[in-house]
Amino acid sequence: MLTNDQLAKWDRENFFHPSTNLGQFARGEGPQRIVTGGSGVHITDRDGTQLLDGFAGLYCVNVGYGRTEISEAIAKQAHELAYYHAYAGHGSEASITLSKMVMDRAPKNMARVYFGLGGSDANETNIKLIWYYNNILGRPEKKKIISRWRGYHGSGLMTGSLTGLELFHKKFDLPLAQVIHTEAPYYFRRPDLTMSEAQFTAHCVAELEALIEREGPDTIAAFIGEPVLGTGGIVPPPEGYWPAIQEVLDKHDILLVVDEVVTGFGRLGSMFGSDHYGVKPDLITSAKGLTSAYAPLSASIVGQRMWDVLCRGTDEYGVLGHGWTYSAHPIGAAAGIANLELIDKLGLVENAAKTGAYLVSTMREALGDHPNVGEVRGEGMLCAVELVAERDGRRFFDASEGKGAKVVAAMLERGVIARAMPQGDILGFAPPLCLTTEEADKIVSVTRDAVTAILG
Amino acid sequence: MLTNDQLAKWDRENFFHPSTNLGQFARGEGPQRIVTGGSGVHITDRDGTQLLDGFAGLYCVNVGYGRTEISEAIAKQAHELAYYHAYAGHGSEASITLSKMVMDRAPKNMARVYFGLGGSDANETNIKLIWYYNNILGRPEKKKIISRWRGYHGSGLMTGSLTGLELFHKKFDLPLAQVIHTEAPYYFRRPDLTMSEAQFTAHCVAELEALIEREGPDTIAAFIGEPVLGTGGIVPPPEGYWPAIQEVLDKHDILLVVDEVVTGFGRLGSMFGSDHYGVKPDLITSAKGLTSAYAPLSASIVGQRMWDVLCRGTDEYGVLGHGWTYSAHPIGAAAGIANLELIDKLGLVENAAKTGAYLVSTMREALGDHPNVGEVRGEGMLCAVELVAERDGRRFFDASEGKGAKVVAAMLERGVIARAMPQGDILGFAPPLCLTTEEADKIVSVTRDAVTAILG
Repeated sequence: MLTNDQLAKWDRENFFHPSTNLGQFARGEGPQRIVTGGSGVHITDRDGTQLLDGFAGLYCVNVGYGRTEISEAIAKQAHELAYYHAYAGHGSEASITLSKMVMDRAPKNMARVYFGLGGSDANETNIKLIWYYNNILGRPEKKKIISRWRGYHGSGLMTGSLTGLELFHKKFDLPLAQVIHTEAPYYFRRPDLTMSEAQFTAHCVAELEALIEREGPDTIAAFIGEPVLGTGGIVPPPEGYWPAIQEVLDKHDILLVVDEVVTGFGRLGSMFGSDHYGVKPDLITSAKGLTSAYAPLSASIVGQRMWDVLCRGTDEYGVLGHGWTYSAHPIGAAAGIANLELIDKLGLVENAAKTGAYLVSTMREALGDHPNVGEVRGEGMLCAVELVAERDGRRFFDASEGKGAKVVAAMLERGVIARAMPQGDILGFAPPLCLTTEEADKIVSVTRDAVTAILG
Repeated sequence: MLTNDQLAKWDRENFFHPSTNLGQFARGEGPQRIVTGGSGVHITDRDGTQLLDGFAGLYCVNVGYGRTEISEAIAKQAHELAYYHAYAGHGSEASITLSKMVMDRAPKNMARVYFGLGGSDANETNIKLIWYYNNILGRPEKKKIISRWRGYHGSGLMTGSLTGLELFHKKFDLPLAQVIHTEAPYYFRRPDLTMSEAQFTAHCVAELEALIEREGPDTIAAFIGEPVLGTGGIVPPPEGYWPAIQEVLDKHDILLVVDEVVTGFGRLGSMFGSDHYGVKPDLITSAKGLTSAYAPLSASIVGQRMWDVLCRGTDEYGVLGHGWTYSAHPIGAAAGIANLELIDKLGLVENAAKTGAYLVSTMREALGDHPNVGEVRGEGMLCAVELVAERDGRRFFDASEGKGAKVVAAMLERGVIARAMPQGDILGFAPPLCLTTEEADKIVSVTRDAVTAILG
């Protein structure tokens, strides 16, 4: 792995990579790849290797790589006005235009959009707004946030606490006390294998209600969840889950934050997962799909009932003390406009539905009967293959065997990027929304070959 | 203020601006400005108004506006590879090159650089790393962070807690319990007016030691501070402050985080404030000056003693569970490279020292004797004018009079942007580092005229 190439050496000697084994990488023992370009669903690295990116970066390059429409919009904005801040009523033509485009696409009950930089900081904004909201309403005790085990909502201190995955907690003293977790709506891992989906939904809802009662409804400010669990395993909700959850929240006057960082702007084959599952959020978190990652930008979309209270608050207490220097950065806004236009023009939401369904069904046909495949699942352009040691009795592999990671490594050798999800042996797929059926076939055949190579 | 212009209307109806009075803005009662372009130290808005930006955006557009060298670097990167992630040892030529350039400029004891998006998230990363460090060292109780009143370190939940300003705490339930505050090294506001600077430094150090003893040194993980207090009032430290603080921290094995979001990459007339004041940080926070805001990018620069422990940690526990999707974004990295090259080429660090000193001394000459000017202070390209109701006895204005904001509004009418710092009547100046003496003269004469217009 260790090369004498100067750039590779600089990399090992200077660059602290996220989500990396630091010592291994510095010693040249870990994976290292310098990516130089991309086109459509493919990326190319410095060694000339071309790979089909079945995970769209980190489920974010939704329109695919090398879209000149977006690059040119970024270039134009960089030349006209790379930056001015958005504090105290300042804005740019791009940020204002994008705010209108986002609100035109958002569910009907939403009122305003706050632009940040990434999903983690958008959820940070959301929690601040939730606490402020309850302070303005004179409910200082109503502050706890309920998240789900296996949810992913960021890797900051509070946002990493929202996240319900061990990797993001261990040795960081997380979760913090303000966040509590409830059952993951993960049917394949339901506690009682005889449960139907509807029964499992009722079980999740009962668990949530019990938690609320135990803590006291007057202490619970909000519930946060992804429409489809993402990094926790790519798991669509069981039948009837979201409407039943919303009913409980409404009953106890608890705000609903729908984290659409992965699902927003088309990945489920709908513009938003909230509409897809028929829920009415108080806050929507968005990032990745907003710009297809061409430039950093996130959005906290605020519902009307919260917005009204926030305005009451600033009428009484003055300027809201919240902002990032790079909130609504013009480069991000320009990328967002071009990206949303391209999604419409290319019909990518429709393609996510159609080709996504094709990917999942083809994967199921190819792998559904394999003795080490417990489940093939998906929604829109999201797909997962969950590996098991034995199908009967649903026996999982021991984590130390790293079976998922081994299959993903075998796929990489065959030219396709998938993601070994961090908790369980789960192969994750979230290709660009422009995926064709031929490219889907390639992903499926490489997955099958790799599963066979590793597991027989 | 309310216009029928469509863009202005979209703005009021859709856009949630940071640090803004939300209700006022939505009703068209607050300030609104749509910025369209800029060149050097000037910006232009949609109405054709040209303004001299005496605050460089939010002290971030250090090289000035309209630098085609950076715009072109952004455009080139956008066309080649707008995005790929940096997880698990991935990188781009731009991000690796920039990591090398940052480390070449950083103080000698620094080991690696982690790239995030803005100052807030960089401090979020820092706290996570500090807690991880002490967990790996087997010191689970050593976790509290000491910050200073009037420090500014972000506006997230934990980073807003580090911040020691009322605006960022009120109604948000901040600061959180993990953060405690000590005395601001703000000589003009010293408790005893007979104190010399050296005596005040001894007082600040004694306050810090007393806090550490009270809490127990084994519970204190780190101390964070800006070399020069920024948003808290633009206040250079009193004589001998930093070496004396470092001595106390070393004695109690407490890490030092130097927040150089404002000062990093030249603003003080030195590449870093840490070198400027002769301290050895364990972590440096950087953002604004790293890219001059042309694209979002932050840096957490990690010192050798922390890095060694982090590597031990990942050797034992595997991958570090921390990362943002947009960590080390290639567009930000390309902007950073071009920006650092331009700073060198134009000699902006030297100009910050030279023209900055000219700005402060000219301001002092013009305003130092005004009966409502308590102090003119500065360091490098940072300057502040602190207004008082009476010089004798150092009587401050009542906050409700908003004298600082009124002077800044009067300056704006005269074509110069300054910032009314949020706590106190303090006029803040942080122009682009390319400021000329003629432009400095303009800032000073407009400041004098505005002070005279408002205060007589």
